[in-house]
Amino acid sequence: MKTIVKESPIPGGLALEERPIPTPEDNHVLIKTKKTAICGTDIHIYGWNSWAQKTIKTPQIIGHEFVGEVVDVGRNVTNAKAGDLVSGEGHLFCGKCRHCLTGRAHLCRRTKGIGVNTDGAFAEYFTFPASNIWHCDSSIPLNILSVLDPLGNAMHTVRAFDVLSEDVIVTGAGPIGLMSVPILKRAGARNIVVTDINPKRLELARTLGATATVNIGYETIPDVIATIPSMVEGFDIGLEMSGSAAAFNDMIDVMANGGKIAILGFLPPEAKIEWDKMIFKSLTLKGIYGRHVFDTWYQMTALLQSGLSEEIAKIITHEFHYTDYEKAFKLMQSGESGKIILDWE
Amino acid sequence: MKTIVKESPIPGGLALEERPIPTPEDNHVLIKTKKTAICGTDIHIYGWNSWAQKTIKTPQIIGHEFVGEVVDVGRNVTNAKAGDLVSGEGHLFCGKCRHCLTGRAHLCRRTKGIGVNTDGAFAEYFTFPASNIWHCDSSIPLNILSVLDPLGNAMHTVRAFDVLSEDVIVTGAGPIGLMSVPILKRAGARNIVVTDINPKRLELARTLGATATVNIGYETIPDVIATIPSMVEGFDIGLEMSGSAAAFNDMIDVMANGGKIAILGFLPPEAKIEWDKMIFKSLTLKGIYGRHVFDTWYQMTALLQSGLSEEIAKIITHEFHYTDYEKAFKLMQSGESGKIILDWE
Amino acid sequence: MKTIVKESPIPGGLALEERPIPTPEDNHVLIKTKKTAICGTDIHIYGWNSWAQKTIKTPQIIGHEFVGEVVDVGRNVTNAKAGDLVSGEGHLFCGKCRHCLTGRAHLCRRTKGIGVNTDGAFAEYFTFPASNIWHCDSSIPLNILSVLDPLGNAMHTVRAFDVLSEDVIVTGAGPIGLMSVPILKRAGARNIVVTDINPKRLELARTLGATATVNIGYETIPDVIATIPSMVEGFDIGLEMSGSAAAFNDMIDVMANGGKIAILGFLPPEAKIEWDKMIFKSLTLKGIYGRHVFDTWYQMTALLQSGLSEEIAKIITHEFHYTDYEKAFKLMQSGESGKIILDWE
Amino acid sequence: MKTIVKESPIPGGLALEERPIPTPEDNHVLIKTKKTAICGTDIHIYGWNSWAQKTIKTPQIIGHEFVGEVVDVGRNVTNAKAGDLVSGEGHLFCGKCRHCLTGRAHLCRRTKGIGVNTDGAFAEYFTFPASNIWHCDSSIPLNILSVLDPLGNAMHTVRAFDVLSEDVIVTGAGPIGLMSVPILKRAGARNIVVTDINPKRLELARTLGATATVNIGYETIPDVIATIPSMVEGFDIGLEMSGSAAAFNDMIDVMANGGKIAILGFLPPEAKIEWDKMIFKSLTLKGIYGRHVFDTWYQMTALLQSGLSEEIAKIITHEFHYTDYEKAFKLMQSGESGKIILDWE
Repeated sequence: MKTIVKESPIPGGLALEERPIPTPEDNHVLIKTKKTAICGTDIHIYGWNSWAQKTIKTPQIIGHEFVGEVVDVGRNVTNAKAGDLVSGEGHLFCGKCRHCLTGRAHLCRRTKGIGVNTDGAFAEYFTFPASNIWHCDSSIPLNILSVLDPLGNAMHTVRAFDVLSEDVIVTGAGPIGLMSVPILKRAGARNIVVTDINPKRLELARTLGATATVNIGYETIPDVIATIPSMVEGFDIGLEMSGSAAAFNDMIDVMANGGKIAILGFLPPEAKIEWDKMIFKSLTLKGIYGRHVFDTWYQMTALLQSGLSEEIAKIITHEFHYTDYEKAFKLMQSGESGKIILDWE
Repeated sequence: MKTIVKESPIPGGLALEERPIPTPEDNHVLIKTKKTAICGTDIHIYGWNSWAQKTIKTPQIIGHEFVGEVVDVGRNVTNAKAGDLVSGEGHLFCGKCRHCLTGRAHLCRRTKGIGVNTDGAFAEYFTFPASNIWHCDSSIPLNILSVLDPLGNAMHTVRAFDVLSEDVIVTGAGPIGLMSVPILKRAGARNIVVTDINPKRLELARTLGATATVNIGYETIPDVIATIPSMVEGFDIGLEMSGSAAAFNDMIDVMANGGKIAILGFLPPEAKIEWDKMIFKSLTLKGIYGRHVFDTWYQMTALLQSGLSEEIAKIITHEFHYTDYEKAFKLMQSGESGKIILDWE
Repeated sequence: MKTIVKESPIPGGLALEERPIPTPEDNHVLIKTKKTAICGTDIHIYGWNSWAQKTIKTPQIIGHEFVGEVVDVGRNVTNAKAGDLVSGEGHLFCGKCRHCLTGRAHLCRRTKGIGVNTDGAFAEYFTFPASNIWHCDSSIPLNILSVLDPLGNAMHTVRAFDVLSEDVIVTGAGPIGLMSVPILKRAGARNIVVTDINPKRLELARTLGATATVNIGYETIPDVIATIPSMVEGFDIGLEMSGSAAAFNDMIDVMANGGKIAILGFLPPEAKIEWDKMIFKSLTLKGIYGRHVFDTWYQMTALLQSGLSEEIAKIITHEFHYTDYEKAFKLMQSGESGKIILDWE
Repeated sequence: MKTIVKESPIPGGLALEERPIPTPEDNHVLIKTKKTAICGTDIHIYGWNSWAQKTIKTPQIIGHEFVGEVVDVGRNVTNAKAGDLVSGEGHLFCGKCRHCLTGRAHLCRRTKGIGVNTDGAFAEYFTFPASNIWHCDSSIPLNILSVLDPLGNAMHTVRAFDVLSEDVIVTGAGPIGLMSVPILKRAGARNIVVTDINPKRLELARTLGATATVNIGYETIPDVIATIPSMVEGFDIGLEMSGSAAAFNDMIDVMANGGKIAILGFLPPEAKIEWDKMIFKSLTLKGIYGRHVFDTWYQMTALLQSGLSEEIAKIITHEFHYTDYEKAFKLMQSGESGKIILDWE
């Protein structure tokens, strides 16, 4: 079978390699890949940044955003059979710690990631623990099913706090920031304001339901707020999706007292905030990682079944055959795309 | 000034009476009425049922669903001035009990109701405690502003539990049951199933966003559920709006384990349920009364500003000048209407 | 090996039977029993009540409250090894439904019970799914570890609502009602009032930390409340542990507005309540079943490590060798005991 | 009447001044002071730090921690009468913003403080808004009633998250950090570890119920944790009471994944944290300010009625007649005391 492998510890360094089709161990299934999507993490591995250099041992089959079909099952698998359409949680949990035992496996401190620490999904076939399978509703398009992992990040971030009737600011209009906009809309947020410096992304944010956008290259958030009559005391909820210290501080300035901020973007260690603002305003900051297994998967499926699919489709801008992976990675790296799909059939 | 008074302790028994315009006491305002709406409670008083006979002392100026304009303020009023467009919470609280002191005045056990225990809003002018005023967004139509009280009941009931991504059953498609449908939709519920025996009301429920309706005159809930592919384990949330023991038991039967039911309808004391179902299924039942002061008012305003007004407008079916009150009450009593507005200008 | 078997479908009908020591299947462990405790369910099976007649197929090895030692493990078991001291969740879950997949397995609608639907723990050895093991802190006495199942019922019921600073009423001072008292105390409840008709149990309740008790044979709850100066508006939290319709209605009468009731006792289907009280008071009723897997197990372990063991020890009144099971069951059936332990070593 | 006034904008600069007894306005009461306590804020005003220089306009009657007796009431006061024993919330709220209208007045962004922005309680008499009165249980000692304000800070911080069964770290053993220890104990925390550099304070923390203490002058938190067998994955809850960036970072390092930190201490703006830890660990940080009005007041009263008074008494180390205020302020400033009471009778 064909696989996309990070072969050499250098920028680029991907290769299409032939490997034997694996056999599923006990409690595992064998999945035949239908579609995969390229994650920011994959781009870090491709670009070979410092995180990738510390983390990845070449050669490594990469990829973890996928939808496929179960074609074989190992011993003791009772929750799947050949023919099942599945995606799955790519964070592999220890199963033994307090969090794993109490329904909060996303907080497991011994998590491993497929396509990072173990063989990934950018392959014609791969084995996967039965415990991590998510059974897909086949009425949802395959392209959408291949991006459940990042959509789950967006869903998990939105669900950090109750947004119904609230005013929400999203800093950063990358794919996950954009995905959060229609989720917020469907969850009943009143005003959704999105900030970024990329005018195309901000335009897409408005298409997806943002009340207003702020191009921080030439606008300020307070100026834009002033045009929204129902906004009085600042934002109730903030979603930090940019990883930018400046954006984060701008956000803190426009939060209402008692405001709540979910942080998905990786803020740099040198990011400073004025803690007295955080305390006097009684702000809550919540770090978000991964997805709730499987609450998040259930919730996003429910929203996709209610119409969210059409909005998410707009965030998927390109689709390539997997053999054109080099083109796809270069385009994704350029920042000139939304989500990019690789087709494995 | 003119007022609508329950004059005689008999069915009907309303009269248009002349009264002096009152003067606002300390901490009170004088409101000039613009529009009022007729509540089920007003119909009970009109029909003089057993509750009304126990509760109402004639003569009583009735009415509590209103929007009006502040025309005078008493001493110490700092939150309102002449010209302000207001509605208000008609439950008057003691201000001294634990609940009143901790932001849960809707749970005050010494509540009095305007138009029931004190002079009501079916009058050209009435005085009102400044503490109970809700300032209205004048971009919302007056008809909608006159039904904030029952809309608040619906909002409060929906907000009893988190409905995002969940499957919800509403038993009873009266005005408040109908109002809950677009709120549920905007709050991100997946499937919304409404039951009643009135085909017109069920048709309106579908127009307002219900996924499906069940006319329990000739359909069963399980039969209808079977037509909805995404429904697997039963309903996560139930809103009891009918006051019918049969509807309530039907609901219990189709709840998923761990399901949550908010009860706004007045179930009769003879209503029996199978408690072992309630316990084995680990159901939660929550009694709902009034509105959270003022969380509910804030939340429904936010949704109205987001487009809910258009949906609520469909539930208001008639409008009369207040001098035609007898016609309005008779129509409302017949059950052949949605909400009915009385115009005071 | 020896086992206690419900052999005949008649009242009594237990026998000590010899069976072969089982071999653990994949993902299962073999446990050598140290101590077990007798549950009310076991007494129902012994007494052969209508529930037992419908549910139990003889011959059935009974028992599900246990502590033991792992002596063998099947294939794929990574969370236990020979020598581990364990108890475990006796509700066996499907692992596939929404609740099982989202950390709420206690709400699984396909639950089976060991000692009811599958071979039980009243045996020298038994096999048990590795997924259901709870690793015990060996510094906690074995007697206490053998009652984690009912203690978990108490813990789960107390945790239904936040009790810190609140006034709590417990109706029913059976073993689980009694266990809830020191948990409530340690969770910071202000006043804990316990009702029953058995003076010995009420005395034990006071020893365990109850502020006051009500013997409903000759006292009323309002009379007792009147002696507690800090009680003003009624109880904030109620724990229904009696299964008595009268006790439940008494409780509803003395709840404060907004009060919350957790119901563990099996109320009979003919139990009627005045629904208008439930609604006007905005009460919440929550059915409780089983234990949260494994939040409840973690929480009660934490409290046992903090000193709860000494209090629970007072609720265990008798201990027998397992060969004296008939004596033990008769005593338990008489109601003249607290928890009774069977020793298997 | 006599008052303690910050007379001159210099360090020290307090004077005992004669002022006329004020008359209560509408909706206000006149309080005759019984006891007051000295807050860190008062010491900032005394020491004339940069915050005080920006905030205080001399001459200013200072003080806000008090217990006294109502001796007169203005117009419209219905919740108090002469003779009532009261303390009160010293944060004066606008009453008009969303938070004030929805039971979250502690989040009002227009808060003013008595003794900071308006005449304070270090006076024989002072007027106070009736809305801010807290009626005291006279069975609680007056010394304790005079420190409800800082005790409320501790209560509010502990209540930020559910601590039952959890492991909690408190950084900083000043008066409020110390007050939090017995509250945590009574709320059912399992392990309570307190850090500071002052051995006397740490000794007092142990007396008050801390499981262990860490003198960060010569010990590390991980070393101390290693001596507590039940601590496995780090702390579930952190209370930051030190205002020290180093202590805060130490805390982040020892939090479990999913841990929650309430921050009452004023961290300096230059405090840097490693945000990737905060995000990978999915930590929640919550800024705490003031007290929930009046939930916090109710909750701490309930705990005082349950025995907390005896523990808090140990944190009050000195008592002076108000005419000895200079001695009291000097001692408090030295750091060699716990809470200090001024007696006004």
